[in-house]
Amino acid sequence: MTLQEMGAKAKECARKLAAMGPEKERALLEAAEALREHQEEILAANEEDLRAGEAAGMTASLLDRLRLTPERIEGMALAMEEVAQAADPVGRVLMGETRPNGLRIEKVTVPLGVIGIIYEARPNVTSDACALCVKAGNAVILRGGKEALRSNQAIVRALNTALPEGALQLVEDPSRESARELMGLTDYLDVLIPRGGAGLIRAVKEGSRVPVIETGVGNCHVFVDESAQVDMAAEIIFNAKTSRPSVCNAIETILVHSAIAEKALPAIASRLREKNVQLRGCPRACALLPDAVPATEEDWATEFLDYILAVKIVDSLDEALAHIAKYSGGHSEAIVTESYQNAERFLQSVDSAAVYVNASTRFTDGGEFGLGAEIGISTQKLHARGPMGLEQLTSTKFLLRGSGQVR
Amino acid sequence: MTLQEMGAKAKECARKLAAMGPEKERALLEAAEALREHQEEILAANEEDLRAGEAAGMTASLLDRLRLTPERIEGMALAMEEVAQAADPVGRVLMGETRPNGLRIEKVTVPLGVIGIIYEARPNVTSDACALCVKAGNAVILRGGKEALRSNQAIVRALNTALPEGALQLVEDPSRESARELMGLTDYLDVLIPRGGAGLIRAVKEGSRVPVIETGVGNCHVFVDESAQVDMAAEIIFNAKTSRPSVCNAIETILVHSAIAEKALPAIASRLREKNVQLRGCPRACALLPDAVPATEEDWATEFLDYILAVKIVDSLDEALAHIAKYSGGHSEAIVTESYQNAERFLQSVDSAAVYVNASTRFTDGGEFGLGAEIGISTQKLHARGPMGLEQLTSTKFLLRGSGQVR
Repeated sequence: MTLQEMGAKAKECARKLAAMGPEKERALLEAAEALREHQEEILAANEEDLRAGEAAGMTASLLDRLRLTPERIEGMALAMEEVAQAADPVGRVLMGETRPNGLRIEKVTVPLGVIGIIYEARPNVTSDACALCVKAGNAVILRGGKEALRSNQAIVRALNTALPEGALQLVEDPSRESARELMGLTDYLDVLIPRGGAGLIRAVKEGSRVPVIETGVGNCHVFVDESAQVDMAAEIIFNAKTSRPSVCNAIETILVHSAIAEKALPAIASRLREKNVQLRGCPRACALLPDAVPATEEDWATEFLDYILAVKIVDSLDEALAHIAKYSGGHSEAIVTESYQNAERFLQSVDSAAVYVNASTRFTDGGEFGLGAEIGISTQKLHARGPMGLEQLTSTKFLLRGSGQVR
Repeated sequence: MTLQEMGAKAKECARKLAAMGPEKERALLEAAEALREHQEEILAANEEDLRAGEAAGMTASLLDRLRLTPERIEGMALAMEEVAQAADPVGRVLMGETRPNGLRIEKVTVPLGVIGIIYEARPNVTSDACALCVKAGNAVILRGGKEALRSNQAIVRALNTALPEGALQLVEDPSRESARELMGLTDYLDVLIPRGGAGLIRAVKEGSRVPVIETGVGNCHVFVDESAQVDMAAEIIFNAKTSRPSVCNAIETILVHSAIAEKALPAIASRLREKNVQLRGCPRACALLPDAVPATEEDWATEFLDYILAVKIVDSLDEALAHIAKYSGGHSEAIVTESYQNAERFLQSVDSAAVYVNASTRFTDGGEFGLGAEIGISTQKLHARGPMGLEQLTSTKFLLRGSGQVR
């Protein structure tokens, strides 16, 4: 089937999905159960992907992302069930009133339509994305990485035993060409979401004529203000850097006020030494940190996604704000402070999806925010910003009920 | 100044505008007053544009769009004052709660940042767009049509006597090249909004790497169901076609159920004859309408924006829904019916920004919907759908206040 044909099929199915209520929940619960029932086939397909990956010299960490186990498949099924049982995001009335001429107006949520997702090696994205898109009444076309093709095919075959035809389709040719073609499928796709590394996201953002929602690139900061509690600062930085360095809400740079640097930096460094974090400092920071290596200009702009942290001493909140405005990816930033005024200024001035006072940036997550499962963290300002869950996979329309009104 | 420099200046000003509260209202009220004070200069500049337009053979209707008068300038000032005095769309708390770990989360509205607008001949767009963008805390870069350049320059000069530097900038070179350059200004522009004809909107949508919000292309339909009241149908169609044929919420095609066509079509046609509307019918419609000419396939897809109406007889609601799904621009559609079931099915199934029962599509407008002034009617599903007012010119961010929480 060509991508055009897949698009037409998805669009047709999207019209049916838009009219479905509780049937969506039932279909997704059955699909989750089908993952369990088809576990053997999925594991066998995954085994083939793993063998091919090993032969191609894939790194251990990539192989680990690709690997499925009975526990991981159970986790995928449970995640689908959670989304299946969430409140229906479609058909909510966001506002309504009767106009002076008697026309009754309502603004209601509706599905987006057809969603395309381009992603890399993790096969759990296949079931996660399917559950979120279908629960919000959308058809979805998935284009996963070639490393996970057999796993994804097996997962999609299992899920499709329970879903309406056309609701979930997998691009069988995971080439660059198919990604490019998806980016031009404006007749059928309402939105394209890239999930993966910065390179993938940039390529989709630059190349797509379908509207894109940018997700998941970080370069997050913690600013330690002059009034900060040093222990709290050290703990927050330790958590934000080391609890999971490979994720987008981990921090990459700390900015430390010069008035507290002499006291705070050794305490912070000592905590980070427990996890062998490499520090890359500005000249003044290096003078206070014997282990640090000099940071380059590039380091300030880099999302290390590793046990590496850039450290800069600044002389004011304004200098910290300017640094963040220049280098941040607009994801999550935190200030550690005891000053009411500086806390409020930081919250107001930092132009990121999530801005924290005295807490770790690692909380930027749909579940942690109390918003439920998400398809990614949007770092753009249009349509969705921050965790992109069921609500952000819908649009709205206006319904108007009259009795012959003319203007 | 290059567009890059204008972008940098706008971005810098946007940071200041984001922190402004009631000062925005005061600045916009002063700017409106400045329009009145600089009326002579604006009219003189407009006179030059009009003379150049006449010399270039501009049509009378285009010249009328371009023309400013003391009354029209007063209208522009009043419209600005209305927007200035609206509730501030920035800083509203959309949700908030305390998480189980004590972290207090809030989702608040913030400005989008820097907005680019590409538009055609009407100089009132200059002051309207300025008021909406600045009230929502955004800096704006306007690129109007070359026909109105002198008028726009005079208007912008007047407005800028009252606005912060960089809040409102006009591209002085209204060439295709400058439009193309704006479409690539991803470092500075958060969104680009084209206002004008279908050709302009398509060009921006296809060519822009800055996120675009599509506005203002219609091709709206009225479906006359078998149970419709004939008088009501005729009145709604007359209003939706003839009250202002050049606007995007006017209708272009009517679909009439075959069971009522013999009774309804002559009544509808007789009403439309008062305004000399040309009817273009399918073969069955032509058989009932002596004045009608045969419709071509292209007619179903055309936004005539004129006293022309395409007429098709259908045998069921389903056939009407399929026709609308195929040809509609997703703007506004109406059903005229006495059937509860068909009314609800039409509302649910039609995938357009505004869907009506027993009312004219001409109501699709920010003011008529009770939402205030708008920058256009969005026909896309991401970010904004329907009238795009102050609320749709904002984004959101999450604020999190903690006391040392780590994950």
